[in-house]
Amino acid sequence: MKQNQRGNTMRYTVYLSGEIHTDWREKIKTAISEKNLPIDILTPNTDHGSSDDCGTNILGAEEKHFWKDNKAAKINSIRHMTAIKRADIVVVRFGDKYKQWNAAFDAGIATALGKSLIVEHAEEITHPLKEVDAAAMAVAENTEQVIEILEYLSRDY
Amino acid sequence: MKQNQRGNTMRYTVYLSGEIHTDWREKIKTAISEKNLPIDILTPNTDHGSSDDCGTNILGAEEKHFWKDNKAAKINSIRHMTAIKRADIVVVRFGDKYKQWNAAFDAGIATALGKSLIVEHAEEITHPLKEVDAAAMAVAENTEQVIEILEYLSRDY
Amino acid sequence: MKQNQRGNTMRYTVYLSGEIHTDWREKIKTAISEKNLPIDILTPNTDHGSSDDCGTNILGAEEKHFWKDNKAAKINSIRHMTAIKRADIVVVRFGDKYKQWNAAFDAGIATALGKSLIVEHAEEITHPLKEVDAAAMAVAENTEQVIEILEYLSRDY
Amino acid sequence: MKQNQRGNTMRYTVYLSGEIHTDWREKIKTAISEKNLPIDILTPNTDHGSSDDCGTNILGAEEKHFWKDNKAAKINSIRHMTAIKRADIVVVRFGDKYKQWNAAFDAGIATALGKSLIVEHAEEITHPLKEVDAAAMAVAENTEQVIEILEYLSRDY
Amino acid sequence: MKQNQRGNTMRYTVYLSGEIHTDWREKIKTAISEKNLPIDILTPNTDHGSSDDCGTNILGAEEKHFWKDNKAAKINSIRHMTAIKRADIVVVRFGDKYKQWNAAFDAGIATALGKSLIVEHAEEITHPLKEVDAAAMAVAENTEQVIEILEYLSRDY
Amino acid sequence: MKQNQRGNTMRYTVYLSGEIHTDWREKIKTAISEKNLPIDILTPNTDHGSSDDCGTNILGAEEKHFWKDNKAAKINSIRHMTAIKRADIVVVRFGDKYKQWNAAFDAGIATALGKSLIVEHAEEITHPLKEVDAAAMAVAENTEQVIEILEYLSRDY
Amino acid sequence: MKQNQRGNTMRYTVYLSGEIHTDWREKIKTAISEKNLPIDILTPNTDHGSSDDCGTNILGAEEKHFWKDNKAAKINSIRHMTAIKRADIVVVRFGDKYKQWNAAFDAGIATALGKSLIVEHAEEITHPLKEVDAAAMAVAENTEQVIEILEYLSRDY
Amino acid sequence: MKQNQRGNTMRYTVYLSGEIHTDWREKIKTAISEKNLPIDILTPNTDHGSSDDCGTNILGAEEKHFWKDNKAAKINSIRHMTAIKRADIVVVRFGDKYKQWNAAFDAGIATALGKSLIVEHAEEITHPLKEVDAAAMAVAENTEQVIEILEYLSRDY
Repeated sequence: MKQNQRGNTMRYTVYLSGEIHTDWREKIKTAISEKNLPIDILTPNTDHGSSDDCGTNILGAEEKHFWKDNKAAKINSIRHMTAIKRADIVVVRFGDKYKQWNAAFDAGIATALGKSLIVEHAEEITHPLKEVDAAAMAVAENTEQVIEILEYLSRDY
Repeated sequence: MKQNQRGNTMRYTVYLSGEIHTDWREKIKTAISEKNLPIDILTPNTDHGSSDDCGTNILGAEEKHFWKDNKAAKINSIRHMTAIKRADIVVVRFGDKYKQWNAAFDAGIATALGKSLIVEHAEEITHPLKEVDAAAMAVAENTEQVIEILEYLSRDY
Repeated sequence: MKQNQRGNTMRYTVYLSGEIHTDWREKIKTAISEKNLPIDILTPNTDHGSSDDCGTNILGAEEKHFWKDNKAAKINSIRHMTAIKRADIVVVRFGDKYKQWNAAFDAGIATALGKSLIVEHAEEITHPLKEVDAAAMAVAENTEQVIEILEYLSRDY
Repeated sequence: MKQNQRGNTMRYTVYLSGEIHTDWREKIKTAISEKNLPIDILTPNTDHGSSDDCGTNILGAEEKHFWKDNKAAKINSIRHMTAIKRADIVVVRFGDKYKQWNAAFDAGIATALGKSLIVEHAEEITHPLKEVDAAAMAVAENTEQVIEILEYLSRDY
Repeated sequence: MKQNQRGNTMRYTVYLSGEIHTDWREKIKTAISEKNLPIDILTPNTDHGSSDDCGTNILGAEEKHFWKDNKAAKINSIRHMTAIKRADIVVVRFGDKYKQWNAAFDAGIATALGKSLIVEHAEEITHPLKEVDAAAMAVAENTEQVIEILEYLSRDY
Repeated sequence: MKQNQRGNTMRYTVYLSGEIHTDWREKIKTAISEKNLPIDILTPNTDHGSSDDCGTNILGAEEKHFWKDNKAAKINSIRHMTAIKRADIVVVRFGDKYKQWNAAFDAGIATALGKSLIVEHAEEITHPLKEVDAAAMAVAENTEQVIEILEYLSRDY
Repeated sequence: MKQNQRGNTMRYTVYLSGEIHTDWREKIKTAISEKNLPIDILTPNTDHGSSDDCGTNILGAEEKHFWKDNKAAKINSIRHMTAIKRADIVVVRFGDKYKQWNAAFDAGIATALGKSLIVEHAEEITHPLKEVDAAAMAVAENTEQVIEILEYLSRDY
Repeated sequence: MKQNQRGNTMRYTVYLSGEIHTDWREKIKTAISEKNLPIDILTPNTDHGSSDDCGTNILGAEEKHFWKDNKAAKINSIRHMTAIKRADIVVVRFGDKYKQWNAAFDAGIATALGKSLIVEHAEEITHPLKEVDAAAMAVAENTEQVIEILEYLSRDY
């Protein structure tokens, strides 16, 4: 089995959505680079501060928290929607903190647009994630499994 | 201003997604009935027990929780997807308990399918819901506001 | 030539977008009723006051004009999008007052969704409306012509 | 935060629609070039004369103004539609002169095709543009803000 | 074999496009009526005169033949497009006279929209119609065969 | 729990594809009738003889088996495609005889069109059906389970 | 006005459908090459002999003309459909000979897929082509006009 | 006739689905390479062992065969769906062994997504494959014919 050689033109664009407080995206990027996988990675803004403040920083202050959040979320949605539409695969990681409704929201968008969904989360939160998992093509328990899937899908035949 | 008289054929199909532990759907149904609004309501299974157990009850037991949940969530998705696709408006209510990732997931599906999204939630959870709210055509703080919107949209001109 | 008899099932759903300060919609509705045309009419909210204020009236006051307008326009978009999607034909009338960007915006949406577009406007504003007219299946100078087109399209063969 | 380096493949195609009488497009192009942003810019014909006359110049004269405009607008629509469909983001600027219905028309097309819409206009015309703004992911008051948004969206993570 | 009884809800909407100088549509309508088939028939304007003149009759005279034809064809396209979109089956009949490019054009639209295409034409014109026939689900040599197909498809099981 | 009462407008259109040599469709129809479920059933032609011969019977004999089959399969595809497009749910039953590639083909079409797929087959043929099962929302081992699912989905809340 | 320089990324893919008995495609290709226009040209098989015979040459002889034509037309449709789907602009030329129903068929497909249609034909056949012309963004009388349009659309701003 | 020279930009992406126990894909790849055809080939995992075991190998063991198969089939569907969506042409080969329902399933997906389908199979299995063949643009009896078709479609004009 050869990987990514001439004759095979299978390539993937993968959007890494969800949790932004651990280094899981770096693990995947490093693996892709080291294994030379034919995969392009797209990401959201992973810098929490600028992600929350971009609306008011660029377009002007708001007194109400609602509008501050609204302006930021809309600007960020430009990146999210562009990335999801361009992706073949959307990976959504659910961590052990925060509400993470944006992650489930992205999973819903990816599902409705017919993207292949891979979900990563710990076993403990299987029950509340059952609807998201039911739409997924793979449910991984850790990032290593996600990398193994991407490597497997990139094999050359 | 007349409501729902001949000459106006504006009608809506509305799917009520999200939280299933309070009577908010009954309030909306009652209001529609009392005000004679031209609105058809679609709902998920709101009976928690049968919703969780339908997969194993009908298709056979599973040892692993993951597969029990998976079978149930898939059967329920038939109803959810049929309802969202048929709806003009999807209302998603976030309560004060549980993870409610399925609600955010439904909101993502509705958004990607171009449905008009109305979100209802308390002000305290504005920040984690900002991505969902940013895709909504209205963000209500209580069910009375949702009813007022539906009534307003049903006016006859 | 018979109109709307059994054997012919041609029917149209028509959305009347645009100018709301004259009685052109009433003329069309009256003609449809008198001529018994097989046409269902959909309309926006034509009451200027409630259309402008619905957001703040229902969902709470805003200090900034921008957000007041934003909340109202989003609620109204639920009706507009439902109507345009349901329509076979979208009629957009441009009057002689106001900016009417919402009318041109609706025409763009209708065009992109593949709806048959009929535009009505006075000859004097042909030049600035040339992009909208170029997407239209008919450009009428008055409401009588719109009615004649609807009657012609409803003939039974 | 690094911009546009290897490892991140986020790129955008942006169509600059709307007002053609100031140099706002040049400002954006210059900024993209200077900041080396991963953005491809598409534009309409910004030469007023050839844009108005292309139909009759190429396909033959017309006595009626309507058909002169019609022929030109249709040829130009080839460029507009190709650009909007190809774009991830459509920026529409409304100036302080002219009817600019074509700008609102483009915004409607972009919205219906699911493109991310950024609108730029002065605060004074917020009310008549409320329907367009309500569909936008960002409403800027000047071109500098548009550039800041594009720069923010292009950050590498 | 029972026809169209309760328990079977199979119904078809059929658009009869193409040649308008013989009574083939009447034959089909009569058969549907006599056999009580669960089929709704849609037709174009089959009155040659009003079809050619509708544009100038309603919207005003044109000196150039091109614009007279253009105005008429666009108004008629409203009916054609509404009918094709609504149809499950599009039947296109090619006669032995005239260019009939509009019939082939309708067949192309129906094909691209995923409608089931039935073509009727004499054997002699098989070669020039091979591209249209190749997209068809049935190629009939006469209207009786078209009726037999519709009857067969309507059987109840 | 009430079934199919006023206030709930959840209804389903279900296409019963696949195996035609047992009475499984009758079982489902009978159950729907007896339980008064809000379900419309669509079926293929289940009469093997006329299904195989319809092409040559209606459109003329063929010497080659290939063209005889081709003409029949195309006419039947009109019914299949109309039914699948109209359905919310496609049920595909795989029996213990014949190749049944048409059943798997229908399942592929239903999947790509975003229909909810229910597959019924004996446990012994799980391995060769794994790709079809992986796209299904439910995999039943017998028709009773399919009926239980349809009943569950039709509950009124 | 600069053509095709850096900073402008407007490009077009153009499919040249229709008449294959004159050198009009060569004229367009030569002009694109000489003027260095940013346009990719796609064509059908323009060799009449191999186009007619490809089905039987490759897949085996047929006694009936119908099936010979059918096999050829289907193989050719692979190229036609790939080209139309990939194109931004479809140019269809109608010559003065032959039925050319395939040209009108391609125009219908292009229209339904939302491609920008340019039609070229002599003035004498305006009336029978009125439905096709009505869907076109430009109706040229000769190939020089088509080239002028392509050059105009490729200008850099 | 020149092949794949400048001036012609016709290219194809081809997915080779179906039977994985003979070297037919290698024949096609070799021919494309030797003839320098402008064709990109996409393939499924053709290694039977890893294809069956990928789910449990990567995501953990399952006691039930059903879930082992389910996990593998879902991971493989990521590759299949990415490939079919990206392809212009889907070639499906049916061999003389195994159930091959996955091949028919892929053919159904390709058909519903509007891809050009080429089917290869021995004459003996024409009858059970008639529905699949009826959706195909070419039905070949051997791989040499498939190669001839690809070569023919790649000719430069």
